[in-house]
Amino acid sequence: MKAEIISIGTELLLGEITDNNASFLASQLPLLGIDLYFISTVGDNQKRLVETLRRAWERSDIIITTGGLGPTQDDITREAIAELLNEEIKIDVALAQELKAFFGRRGLEMPPSNVKQASVITSAEIIPNPRGTAPGWWVEKGGRTIITMPGPPGEMQLMWEKAVFPKLQQKSEAVILSRTIKTFGLPEAKVDELVSPFLSANDPTLATYAKPDGIHLRVATKAREVKEAKEKLDRREADIRAILKEYIWGVDSETLEAIIGNLLISKKLSLATMEFGTGGFLANLITNVPGSSAYFKGGLVVHSREMALAFGVDDRLLAQYGAMSPEVAEAMATIARQRFKAAIGIAVSGVTGFGETENKAVDTIFISIDDGKNRQNFTRKYPGSPQQLKHRAALAALFELRRILLEGSIDASNY
Amino acid sequence: MKAEIISIGTELLLGEITDNNASFLASQLPLLGIDLYFISTVGDNQKRLVETLRRAWERSDIIITTGGLGPTQDDITREAIAELLNEEIKIDVALAQELKAFFGRRGLEMPPSNVKQASVITSAEIIPNPRGTAPGWWVEKGGRTIITMPGPPGEMQLMWEKAVFPKLQQKSEAVILSRTIKTFGLPEAKVDELVSPFLSANDPTLATYAKPDGIHLRVATKAREVKEAKEKLDRREADIRAILKEYIWGVDSETLEAIIGNLLISKKLSLATMEFGTGGFLANLITNVPGSSAYFKGGLVVHSREMALAFGVDDRLLAQYGAMSPEVAEAMATIARQRFKAAIGIAVSGVTGFGETENKAVDTIFISIDDGKNRQNFTRKYPGSPQQLKHRAALAALFELRRILLEGSIDASNY
Repeated sequence: MKAEIISIGTELLLGEITDNNASFLASQLPLLGIDLYFISTVGDNQKRLVETLRRAWERSDIIITTGGLGPTQDDITREAIAELLNEEIKIDVALAQELKAFFGRRGLEMPPSNVKQASVITSAEIIPNPRGTAPGWWVEKGGRTIITMPGPPGEMQLMWEKAVFPKLQQKSEAVILSRTIKTFGLPEAKVDELVSPFLSANDPTLATYAKPDGIHLRVATKAREVKEAKEKLDRREADIRAILKEYIWGVDSETLEAIIGNLLISKKLSLATMEFGTGGFLANLITNVPGSSAYFKGGLVVHSREMALAFGVDDRLLAQYGAMSPEVAEAMATIARQRFKAAIGIAVSGVTGFGETENKAVDTIFISIDDGKNRQNFTRKYPGSPQQLKHRAALAALFELRRILLEGSIDASNY
Repeated sequence: MKAEIISIGTELLLGEITDNNASFLASQLPLLGIDLYFISTVGDNQKRLVETLRRAWERSDIIITTGGLGPTQDDITREAIAELLNEEIKIDVALAQELKAFFGRRGLEMPPSNVKQASVITSAEIIPNPRGTAPGWWVEKGGRTIITMPGPPGEMQLMWEKAVFPKLQQKSEAVILSRTIKTFGLPEAKVDELVSPFLSANDPTLATYAKPDGIHLRVATKAREVKEAKEKLDRREADIRAILKEYIWGVDSETLEAIIGNLLISKKLSLATMEFGTGGFLANLITNVPGSSAYFKGGLVVHSREMALAFGVDDRLLAQYGAMSPEVAEAMATIARQRFKAAIGIAVSGVTGFGETENKAVDTIFISIDDGKNRQNFTRKYPGSPQQLKHRAALAALFELRRILLEGSIDASNY
């Protein structure tokens, strides 16, 4: 099956936003064994959009559009598809009621113009949008499929995962499966070197990607059946694990913060944080996990020496070693553990671009983990912007915490 | 002049890389007064590339391609343009010598296949590539211009700045300028309704976009000179400000957190936060601003009633109103202010998907701001995932703080 993506929005043609939707969808289609031959970007102009849709209709089996489903006059995707298919647009009364209810739940009245988002054509089936007011359309006509989704990436991706991907999976003949193996602590070139024999293999293919949470290795294979594909992936994953060992922390959609959460729950341990310079990024990451209140007690965010002192860091330590030091990080880990009555305290100190500078390099991070028995310190250097550094610092702390938890020396029986 | 961008490379269609070249070029063309109507992405397939080039040739004055200029067999941009124009490809001897010298300067011998990068057609003028071995082509034929540039963004952007932009500037007759006006607190459809007369205007044009930090309005205009374009934007901005008034918080690349930072610095005020359920997102956002340590004292992140109690929230308040309530948020704002000895304390309580539920709706946020004289409370409802809710909650808090700071009742003289 040949697919084509059409990204719609004048803001894309003005370069105001980058088209991450197209690259997201492009990365998903191989998983369905669907070949993507073209991506087109058009503005909010009905004539040019219809022209683009018509050409896609002539040469592709599946047309996926994103954008142009808002409630305003410049959102013309629905109108363009109706024109292409020569169908009439009508308001779906039940859908209009649902939209009204969506506004009602927020304590708002639906603006009259929003009723536009409840419009349909006869060939279109509605795809629900749990996150917004722009439902999608699934159109089947003349042996072709048109799928329209909203432009905001959060809404589009949820709609894709919940409804569009499963439905396309039923159409697909071959399966292409892939698995992402996630590492932390090695540079990309080193990972590449270590797995180089597999990088040139044809089946499974292997590629490496540098991501904020480390180097990812994506293994992909095509087969007639899921079972066969899975076995091939399992074998290659075992090869890679034998080489990269403890640098591997997870696979696929796993996140370090969720892995930590599961480990803490299974060991009945609780966690608290103290951050100096990373502004709460670590706490924010930990609390992105649903149910994190079961183990995360809370965090202290200090942003000056004065407040570090006020929360109990010894002024002699600050004077002798400076705020950005292993010694102060170690003291902070203990303060976090004690203040929040947690089993484990983690401290991160660094990202001085945001806080104090003290003439130290702005690329150095100090991490300390106090589990009540031991205090372990880690010093790490990372390149990148201060925001990237915040991210890396938090992930490095979680990566070390994971290792300590897996070594198994601490559990609730120690407390 | 109508332009069209063609991005070439199978890796784009596999979603392995995002097409940042197209968005870069798209953001540059308005500065030249050149209208961009289409962006197309094709793989390394000569038939489909020629097809895409031919259509562009038929409908556009300027065609800009990126990618497919490498030395390997799958790089077919030169061949496809030669086929389109029905011209013969020849090796340019002088250019081949230059490429050899390029390798020589790096102590390398040029691989024989690289001579392919020295090929030209009669209509093409060579565009030098100071950073790599893939020169560009500038083709003028039949009243049309084809510009081919390499895919690596560093090489492409340097070539654009040094050679292509100046050359296009000579062709150009107009400038297009745009301005983004940022609002918070109104749904998109409401904003649209309020500014509807301007939405249908042709000059300046106006469009609205829903973003995490509110609804943005983009005003754009075309003129012969920058001064004239700026005046038109100023007048339309004034019209919009007269309507949307206090809902407007910034323009262009301004962020709420940076605006807050500037206000606090100018008023010599400091800030502290306490968060229950948003896990430090507010503190994280505030500390994304370089220099935030000048005014941000720090933050408390609590994630359970027990820790809210431990940091001083009155247990009778918690029992009577629940953790997610205006009353508890108000108490937390004062605790933040006092604990961190700050001029202003902000509390956010909500996003219960992460913390306790207490059978309350998970889309409600309680915000309180204590400036030492007054305590102001705000209750807001938002749709979206818990992570989006964290983001909106933090932005809503900053938006209200901005309003309070601008009302001007507090400054350092009160302390």
